[in-house]
Amino acid sequence: MAFANNPKYSGVIPPVVTPRTADGAIDVAGLKAVVEHLISGGVTGLFVLGSSGEVPYLTNTERELVVTTINAANAGRVPLVVGANEQTTNRVIEEGRKMVELGADALVVTTPYYALSNAAEVEAHFRAIHAALQVDIFAYDVPVRTHVKLSVATAVALAQDGVIVGVKDSSGDDVSFRQLLLATRDIEGFSVFTGHEVVVDGALLGGAHGVVPGLGNVDPAGYRRLFDAAAAGDFATAAKEQDRLARVFDIVYTPDSARVSGGAAGLGAFKTALVAQGVIDCNKMSVPMVDLNDSEATAITAILAETGLL
Amino acid sequence: MAFANNPKYSGVIPPVVTPRTADGAIDVAGLKAVVEHLISGGVTGLFVLGSSGEVPYLTNTERELVVTTINAANAGRVPLVVGANEQTTNRVIEEGRKMVELGADALVVTTPYYALSNAAEVEAHFRAIHAALQVDIFAYDVPVRTHVKLSVATAVALAQDGVIVGVKDSSGDDVSFRQLLLATRDIEGFSVFTGHEVVVDGALLGGAHGVVPGLGNVDPAGYRRLFDAAAAGDFATAAKEQDRLARVFDIVYTPDSARVSGGAAGLGAFKTALVAQGVIDCNKMSVPMVDLNDSEATAITAILAETGLL
Amino acid sequence: MAFANNPKYSGVIPPVVTPRTADGAIDVAGLKAVVEHLISGGVTGLFVLGSSGEVPYLTNTERELVVTTINAANAGRVPLVVGANEQTTNRVIEEGRKMVELGADALVVTTPYYALSNAAEVEAHFRAIHAALQVDIFAYDVPVRTHVKLSVATAVALAQDGVIVGVKDSSGDDVSFRQLLLATRDIEGFSVFTGHEVVVDGALLGGAHGVVPGLGNVDPAGYRRLFDAAAAGDFATAAKEQDRLARVFDIVYTPDSARVSGGAAGLGAFKTALVAQGVIDCNKMSVPMVDLNDSEATAITAILAETGLL
Amino acid sequence: MAFANNPKYSGVIPPVVTPRTADGAIDVAGLKAVVEHLISGGVTGLFVLGSSGEVPYLTNTERELVVTTINAANAGRVPLVVGANEQTTNRVIEEGRKMVELGADALVVTTPYYALSNAAEVEAHFRAIHAALQVDIFAYDVPVRTHVKLSVATAVALAQDGVIVGVKDSSGDDVSFRQLLLATRDIEGFSVFTGHEVVVDGALLGGAHGVVPGLGNVDPAGYRRLFDAAAAGDFATAAKEQDRLARVFDIVYTPDSARVSGGAAGLGAFKTALVAQGVIDCNKMSVPMVDLNDSEATAITAILAETGLL
Repeated sequence: MAFANNPKYSGVIPPVVTPRTADGAIDVAGLKAVVEHLISGGVTGLFVLGSSGEVPYLTNTERELVVTTINAANAGRVPLVVGANEQTTNRVIEEGRKMVELGADALVVTTPYYALSNAAEVEAHFRAIHAALQVDIFAYDVPVRTHVKLSVATAVALAQDGVIVGVKDSSGDDVSFRQLLLATRDIEGFSVFTGHEVVVDGALLGGAHGVVPGLGNVDPAGYRRLFDAAAAGDFATAAKEQDRLARVFDIVYTPDSARVSGGAAGLGAFKTALVAQGVIDCNKMSVPMVDLNDSEATAITAILAETGLL
Repeated sequence: MAFANNPKYSGVIPPVVTPRTADGAIDVAGLKAVVEHLISGGVTGLFVLGSSGEVPYLTNTERELVVTTINAANAGRVPLVVGANEQTTNRVIEEGRKMVELGADALVVTTPYYALSNAAEVEAHFRAIHAALQVDIFAYDVPVRTHVKLSVATAVALAQDGVIVGVKDSSGDDVSFRQLLLATRDIEGFSVFTGHEVVVDGALLGGAHGVVPGLGNVDPAGYRRLFDAAAAGDFATAAKEQDRLARVFDIVYTPDSARVSGGAAGLGAFKTALVAQGVIDCNKMSVPMVDLNDSEATAITAILAETGLL
Repeated sequence: MAFANNPKYSGVIPPVVTPRTADGAIDVAGLKAVVEHLISGGVTGLFVLGSSGEVPYLTNTERELVVTTINAANAGRVPLVVGANEQTTNRVIEEGRKMVELGADALVVTTPYYALSNAAEVEAHFRAIHAALQVDIFAYDVPVRTHVKLSVATAVALAQDGVIVGVKDSSGDDVSFRQLLLATRDIEGFSVFTGHEVVVDGALLGGAHGVVPGLGNVDPAGYRRLFDAAAAGDFATAAKEQDRLARVFDIVYTPDSARVSGGAAGLGAFKTALVAQGVIDCNKMSVPMVDLNDSEATAITAILAETGLL
Repeated sequence: MAFANNPKYSGVIPPVVTPRTADGAIDVAGLKAVVEHLISGGVTGLFVLGSSGEVPYLTNTERELVVTTINAANAGRVPLVVGANEQTTNRVIEEGRKMVELGADALVVTTPYYALSNAAEVEAHFRAIHAALQVDIFAYDVPVRTHVKLSVATAVALAQDGVIVGVKDSSGDDVSFRQLLLATRDIEGFSVFTGHEVVVDGALLGGAHGVVPGLGNVDPAGYRRLFDAAAAGDFATAAKEQDRLARVFDIVYTPDSARVSGGAAGLGAFKTALVAQGVIDCNKMSVPMVDLNDSEATAITAILAETGLL
C-alpha cells in the first residue's frame, strides 16, 4: 500500500498500557518492558496517554512520569503521539504544552467533554489548540467517552486547513469512517487511523493508513503482519490475520460483567495478557477499577495459547 | 467467494422501494418497473416491505398490494424475502402468515419494538415466530429503529438451533458484525448480510455473504459487480467499485435537513434517482414525509451523471 | 382546583391492564372486574389499550375484544380514551377509525415510531389524523417507547389549533412538562396529564389536570384522594398520599431484573397485585414476556399489606 | 418547612457564574459583585466552580482565582460548596484537597466521566474521595454531562454511611428524585437539592431541602421567596412564584440555536441578564463558546422587564 498522499504517520501505533505495581504505583520497569515488547513487534509509533493508557485515571504527576519513561525507553526509535486529555480548550492547551516539552512528537486531542458543545465549538476548539501549540495534532473521535461525534465535515475542514494531521477514529461508525477516508484521501500527508481492533482489514481495504489497537499491546507483531499484508495488496492474508486477532480480542470478554466495568474489562485483559506473556509482573488497575482475578487470567491464558501467543 | 458453509441466501438482495403516484396511491406499474430494473441489474433476491420499502407507512391493504405485485412481477426468478413488520410476537406471526400466503420465500423479522424487552424476550420472540410459521427467517438487526441491539450471543443461539437462516445487519456496529461472522461461519446454510451501503467491501472481506443495500435500488449492477469481484478474491476491484458507490450514496445527503427528515432523505433520494433514471415517474413519499424538491433532484442528477449512472 | 380553562378531561384516568387466563386468552371476566374496581375507586375515565394494557402485544382481534368488553362494562359511566397504537399516520387513522366505531370517546396517539421522523412530520402526523377522524385526540408523549420527544412547541401549536384536546406526558422530562403547562393553561378545554405515578402532587401543584397512572389499576382510590386533595388546595395531604403511593409503586421493583424485562416488571407487578387483591385470578403476561413468580408475588403482597391495600 | 432530619445544608445555593472581561480574563470585580448580589438576595450558600461557573473551561489558575475571590468576598457569611471537577478518583482527590485549602466548606463531586464505569466503581469513587479528604461531600448527579446516572441505591448507601452529606440532582429524572427523597428522609443531617430551576415547588412539596438554581444568579430573591413560601407550607404562593421564575427561565431559550451551543445558551443568558441588571459589565464566555449578541440581549432584557427584574 503505497499511499498516494504520503501520510506523515501510518502503520501500527498502539496505545501503550500503563502497568502498576501491586501497591498501585506506576511500574516504571514494566512500562519500559512494554515499550520494548511493542517496538520489537514492529510498531511504527507509540500512542502515549490514551484511553488504554488509563489517562483519565492518572494524576498529573503520573502522566508526566509515564511520558518521560516512554520517551526515554523509546530513545527516538518511533514517533511519540501523546494524549492531551482535558475537558476543554484552554485546559488542553496547557496539558499539550507540557506534553510537547516532555517529548511528544504529536498530540492526540478529543472533542470537549463534560461540556455541551456544538459543531462550531468543536471546530474552534481544535483551531485554538493548533494555533497555540503549532504541533502535529490528531483528532481523536471517541464518542463513547466524549459523547460527541466528530463530524466528517468538521474533520475535513480541519484537515484541509492543516489544523490536524490525522484522525484516530474510535467512533464505531464505519459509514462515516469510509466517508472520511474518501473526503481526505487527496490531502497531502494526512492520515486516518482506526481504533477498532477487529475490523482493521476492512479499514485498510477502504484506504485507512493505520490502526491504533489496544490489543496491539498484546500482539504487536500480529497487527504489523496484518498491516504489511494489506500494504502489499494481499487482503486474503490480511483477513486471515484479522480473524485470528479477532479471536485474541475475545480476551476482553472474559471478565465477569457483574463485577468488572466496561472500562476495566478491556484494559484489565490487556494487562493480564501481558503478565501471562511475561512482559509485566502485575495486572493492577487504577482506582477505582478492579483487577481481573485468577479465573479470568486462566481464561485469557487459554485464548493466548490457542492463538499462538504463548 | 465459494462460501464454505453453503449459504442458502447470498449476494445482493436490495430492499425494494415503494413508488407512489402523485395522488399518493401505490404505483403498481412503477413497482413492476423497479423489479425489472433490479433483476436486470443482477440482484440475487428481493427484500420486500423493508424500511426502504416504507413498510411502517403502508396500510395493511397497501402491504398486500406491494407483495402481490412484486411476486407477480418476479415470477419466481429470485427469492422473495418479505418483512413481517409488527411490534411484537403474536402480531408478527399474523403478519408473517399472511406474507407467506402471498408468496414470501422467507420472512424478515426485527426485535420487538415499542416494547421494553430484554435478551430473553428477544430470543423467545424469534423462537415463537419460527415455531408458529416454520419458514425461513432472517433476523433484522436495526437498533436505529427498534432501539434494541440483537446481541451476537442471541443471534448465534438462534442460528445454531435453526430458528433463523440469516441476519440482516443494519446495526452500524462493525465490531459485533465481525464477531457474528466468526461465530457463525461454520453453520451450514447460514448467511450474514450487511445493510450498510458503503462498507460492503470490508464486510465481504470479513466473510459476509451479501448485502441488502437501499442504494441497490439505484445501482443494482454496481453492487453485483462489487459482490462478484469480492467473490473472485479481487478486493482491489471491489474496493474501487465500493468507492464509486460511496460517491453515489452522497445522494442521500442532498436533501435539506431543515426540511426533510432522516427517514425521508434516504428513501426520497432513492426514488428521485429512479425518476432521473427513467425507471419510475414520481418521487412521492408516504404521509407524513415530504417529497424531495427540484433543487434536490438536480443535485441528485448531477451525482448520478458523475458516477456513470445517467 | 377549579381549573380556569375548563378542561374537557381531568382527574384520574388509569391505563387499564389486560388480564389473561392461564392459557393466554384475554380474561374477559377479569377485565370486567378490573373496570368495576377502577370505577368504584373513583376514576374519572378509562384509558384503554395503553402501554399498561399491553397494546403492542395484542393481536387485532384481541384489541377489539378488549375495547368491546370495557365499553360494555363501563356502560357510559366514564369517558373511554382509547389508544390507536400503530407505527405511522395512515395506519393510526385506520386503527383509530375502528376504535371510534367500537366506542372510543377520544383517541390516544403517539408520535410515529419505527420511523426516523422530524418535528414537521410529527406535527403533520397529528394534523392528518385529526382531519381524517374529527375526534378528540390526546397526544401521548412517551419517548422511552417511540424514541421521539414531542416538543413543547409542537404540542402548543396542535393545542392552539384544536388538533389535540390534551397531552398525556410520560416523557420523564419535568422541565418541559412545566413549560407545556404554562404555555397551554389558557387554552379553553385543554388538559395535560402526567403519566408518572410518583410525582403527581408536584404535577398538580404546577397546574396539571390529572394523571394516567398505571399504578391506578392497583390503587384507584388513592389516586382519587390525591387528586381531590390537590383540587382542594390541600397540598400537604396530597403529598402525604403521594408518599404512600410512591411506597406502593415499589412493587414494580420487586421482580428479578435478570429474569424479567423492564416492560414486564411493572405490568406484571400490577397484575400480580390485582390477583392479591382478589380482583383477577391470574397474572399471566402476553408472549414473549414472562410471568412474575411466587417469591415476587410474596414481596408484592407484603408491600400492599404495608400500605393499606390488603 | 421544619425538616425533620435537620439537614446541615438547605435553602437556595446558586452555582455562581464566572464573569470574564472583554479580553477573556476572569473579572474579579464582577465576580465580587455577583457574590454581593446573591447574598443580598438571601441565598443560603454559594456553589462555586459548578457547571454554571464554567468549571470545565477554567484553567487550574483560573479555578484557584475564582475560589479565592469568592471566599474573600463571602467572608464567611454563607457556606462555600465547591466543585472538585476532574475525570476520576485520584484526580478529584488532588483537586478537592486544593479546594479545601482555598476555603471550601464542602465539595461537590460527580461520578467519573470520560470513563466507562459501573455502579461499584461509582460507589468506590465516592468512598475513596471521602476517606482521603474527610470533608462534607455532595454527590452531583448530572448524567447529561457525565453520562452516568447516580442510582438511588448507590446514593442511599453513601448517605447511610456518611460518605456524602447530600445530593445535588440535575438528572432530570423526577421519579428517581422522589424515590431518593423517600429513601433518605430519615437520615440525620442529609439533604437533597434539585438543580432544575422550573420544578422547585414540586421538589420542595416532595421533601427536597433546597435548590441549586443557575437562574438564581439572575433572581436569587425570587428563589428565596419560593423556598420560604414552601417552608411555610404555602404551596399556592410557591407555585405562583415558580410560574414567574419559569417565565424568567425563558431567557435561556432566546439564543439562536444554530449559532449558540446548548452549554453556552443558558450560561450566556445568565451573564447577559446580569449585565442588563447592572451587576457585571460583560457577558464574555470562555473559549470556545460564543457570546450572546445584541438581539439576544434585547430579548433577554424584555423578559427581565416583564417579570419584574428590571
